[in-house]
Amino acid sequence: MADEKLPTQKENYAEWYNQLVLKAELADYAPVRGCMVVRPYGWALWENITSWLDNEFKACGHVNAAFPTLIPMSFFEKEKEHVEGFSPELAVVTHGGGEKLEEPLVVRPTSETIIGHMYAKWIKSWRDLPILIVQWGSVLRWEMRTKLFLRTTEFYWHEGHTAHATKDEAMEEMYRILDIYEKFCLEEAAIPVIKGTKSDTERFAGAQITTSIEAMMWDKRALQSGTSHYFGPNFSKAFDIQYLDQGNTLQYCETTSWAISSRIIGALIMVHGDDQGLVLPPRLAPIQAVMVPIYRDADQKSAVMPVVDRLFAELKAAGIRVKVDDREEVTPGFKFNDWEMRGVPLRIEIGPKDVEKNSVALARRDIPGREGKSFVSQDNLPATVTGMLTTIQAALLAKATAFRDANIHDPKDYEELKQVVEDGWAYSWWCESKECEAKVKADTKATTRNIPLNQPGGEGRCIVCGEKATRKVYFAKAY
Amino acid sequence: MADEKLPTQKENYAEWYNQLVLKAELADYAPVRGCMVVRPYGWALWENITSWLDNEFKACGHVNAAFPTLIPMSFFEKEKEHVEGFSPELAVVTHGGGEKLEEPLVVRPTSETIIGHMYAKWIKSWRDLPILIVQWGSVLRWEMRTKLFLRTTEFYWHEGHTAHATKDEAMEEMYRILDIYEKFCLEEAAIPVIKGTKSDTERFAGAQITTSIEAMMWDKRALQSGTSHYFGPNFSKAFDIQYLDQGNTLQYCETTSWAISSRIIGALIMVHGDDQGLVLPPRLAPIQAVMVPIYRDADQKSAVMPVVDRLFAELKAAGIRVKVDDREEVTPGFKFNDWEMRGVPLRIEIGPKDVEKNSVALARRDIPGREGKSFVSQDNLPATVTGMLTTIQAALLAKATAFRDANIHDPKDYEELKQVVEDGWAYSWWCESKECEAKVKADTKATTRNIPLNQPGGEGRCIVCGEKATRKVYFAKAY
Repeated sequence: MADEKLPTQKENYAEWYNQLVLKAELADYAPVRGCMVVRPYGWALWENITSWLDNEFKACGHVNAAFPTLIPMSFFEKEKEHVEGFSPELAVVTHGGGEKLEEPLVVRPTSETIIGHMYAKWIKSWRDLPILIVQWGSVLRWEMRTKLFLRTTEFYWHEGHTAHATKDEAMEEMYRILDIYEKFCLEEAAIPVIKGTKSDTERFAGAQITTSIEAMMWDKRALQSGTSHYFGPNFSKAFDIQYLDQGNTLQYCETTSWAISSRIIGALIMVHGDDQGLVLPPRLAPIQAVMVPIYRDADQKSAVMPVVDRLFAELKAAGIRVKVDDREEVTPGFKFNDWEMRGVPLRIEIGPKDVEKNSVALARRDIPGREGKSFVSQDNLPATVTGMLTTIQAALLAKATAFRDANIHDPKDYEELKQVVEDGWAYSWWCESKECEAKVKADTKATTRNIPLNQPGGEGRCIVCGEKATRKVYFAKAY
Repeated sequence: MADEKLPTQKENYAEWYNQLVLKAELADYAPVRGCMVVRPYGWALWENITSWLDNEFKACGHVNAAFPTLIPMSFFEKEKEHVEGFSPELAVVTHGGGEKLEEPLVVRPTSETIIGHMYAKWIKSWRDLPILIVQWGSVLRWEMRTKLFLRTTEFYWHEGHTAHATKDEAMEEMYRILDIYEKFCLEEAAIPVIKGTKSDTERFAGAQITTSIEAMMWDKRALQSGTSHYFGPNFSKAFDIQYLDQGNTLQYCETTSWAISSRIIGALIMVHGDDQGLVLPPRLAPIQAVMVPIYRDADQKSAVMPVVDRLFAELKAAGIRVKVDDREEVTPGFKFNDWEMRGVPLRIEIGPKDVEKNSVALARRDIPGREGKSFVSQDNLPATVTGMLTTIQAALLAKATAFRDANIHDPKDYEELKQVVEDGWAYSWWCESKECEAKVKADTKATTRNIPLNQPGGEGRCIVCGEKATRKVYFAKAY
């Protein structure tokens, strides 16, 4: 499909995105309203994301487990805000095994309730704490307007659910996870993010504090890319999660939950992608380097292929995720376009002249055309490629960071804020009132993204009402 | 919970099993009828199972992907046998987003239908074949009588779905996977299995051929531990999965599907477990060796703990999954019982005398008491432990194989068959008629397990009717 061109990002950003997801074979529309099929290439990308996160979680004491997909409807009704937040989005099982169920079951939209129920059963004393469990899987939230990866009725994620003895420990956990999410975005996804606290309006249903990481897409809209919530004792009281402390007194646990979902793939597409298609950061790319042999006839082929095979073996042995595109039915030019569409970070071309000169041509996906092309020796190719991949990874982060920083503004007054959020983010003092937040939304469609943890200090005047403000916030239109 | 004893296997095998699963914290009952929670220890075991299989599948060209959890009800009606087989077991979503759905959706009991639908969309020509996709996740089949791991409404598995150009390739795939399943059971799970073909009665709904691996549990009942199906063009015709062959003629694909589910954990429990609890094969055990420091006072503790810490670091660096049980609130004896219950293959005890003598005590889980205990030098402990784990792995397989072989009988007539299947398996000539199969089931509750691929050759007389038979079959009571 790579022979049909994408619309450019400027022509039609929404269509560029949709067609890229389909043509790069990341995902496809499912025959179930609002659902997607994640195709093998997209799933390989997701596996690289999940395995990094899984290792990080395990390194700080988390363990995985699995809770049922179906949750009794009554569980949702135990936490008031939670049920209000989720009931419009539920998929409901009313029949099982040919009979109508006494109580309807909900396909999980998130698992605080059923996990809370089990924690109440498992936790007896302070010795059982903390419990640090992660569940990997999918959840369903009925969506009216869907977009592949960004907003689908079913999506993939991990959900961490932890229970602690004290508020301090729970808060520490919430921030520890937020730091892991930031590290993932910076080091793996090459996406700069802002860590901060959501406003009360934007909080997760049932949480006391919601923190998030926010990233800027190519069209300058914000994407909430991960969240980490502190519940206080809200769910513990609803589900009776109590422990005997060291003084033998019954106490409610403090709980957290947190998630990054498959929408992070949408972020990767929109932060790094260009008019030729996907651009994947080397650390996450399912294929880091694709080798394209170039020959015109059987003689040239028999000269080129042994070199390709030898270099492939060397690269693979060095742990590089490498693939040889040896298709006979398409031209090298077709292959170039095809792998550019799929965002492979590095292309390695080998033709008869390269065989003679003991060289290969390297073409960087992130720098199109001649500028991104270099000719290097076949000697020590794994080291050269590894170095190049590291360079590309750093270049992607630098480029995305520069772009983001150039599009964050500090408007001098409310009039300027209204202009700024048409094509960027506003970083402004805010009095933290719901009224001012609602006014910005009504006037501009921009919402508060988060109140960054990293604050300038001091105080200012709310950009909307002029009252005293102690913290700055990001306003932006968001996905 | 390890302080409360299990019933012995002889006293009450069913209760021994149920209590073991709970006490070893492998799984727990969920607040949804027929569902289970797989607890962290059980899930870590499942992760070791899945990661081995995932690597094997990928090594022979398979890729992972994700298809929706919900499937339109009408999809099931496209393949006649399939809908008959599955409709009594379906969980049905009738409402979504607060409204009644136009068409009910089914929580997937298996994914042939929705994957077939997508394959029809993706496959155009012979160049697109084979497609070799695996999906990891859970499925739901409404069950009336449930048992943790063995039969639950929701269970965990992989489902492989492949499409091929020819019957030969599809058949080859079916057997390739069956070989991987056998290899997994022998090398990883230490469970001997018999590969064979299911009778028509026992076939998967919609398959032309179902092959299986069958294992013998401690109570001599059989457990079908994995299946690999050949569909011929059944699903291709139902879902219109066609390709243009090299002569430009439209052909139906040949498809397969195959699975091992979380019931394999039930097999691990029932094949290797004993009256003290679980016995895990070292290759799959989440914890391969547990270190128990032994001391009576602070002086002894300060002598013992540095040695424990040093040896722990050495074992861990050698890639051994090792844990130190440094709990202060329980005795060493309690810890011994606790880790025996959890089936940890090797216990390493270190007391003050061991510190003096530069030794440690090793206790094998598979050989209780003094016989399984040895004292070894602290020098080169990782090599000693690795060797011991290899020995344990082999011993478990040898023991299970000897037990199985001792309980497979070749009854001389139908009367003897009826006795044999009360406490073992019968390996007998069978005419392959449904009538004889049904008679055995009615008389004894034993079913045909499979017709082994490895046949003696020649021919015999059906054990039931005396007619000519060309293949032998296993009859056994099964889970």
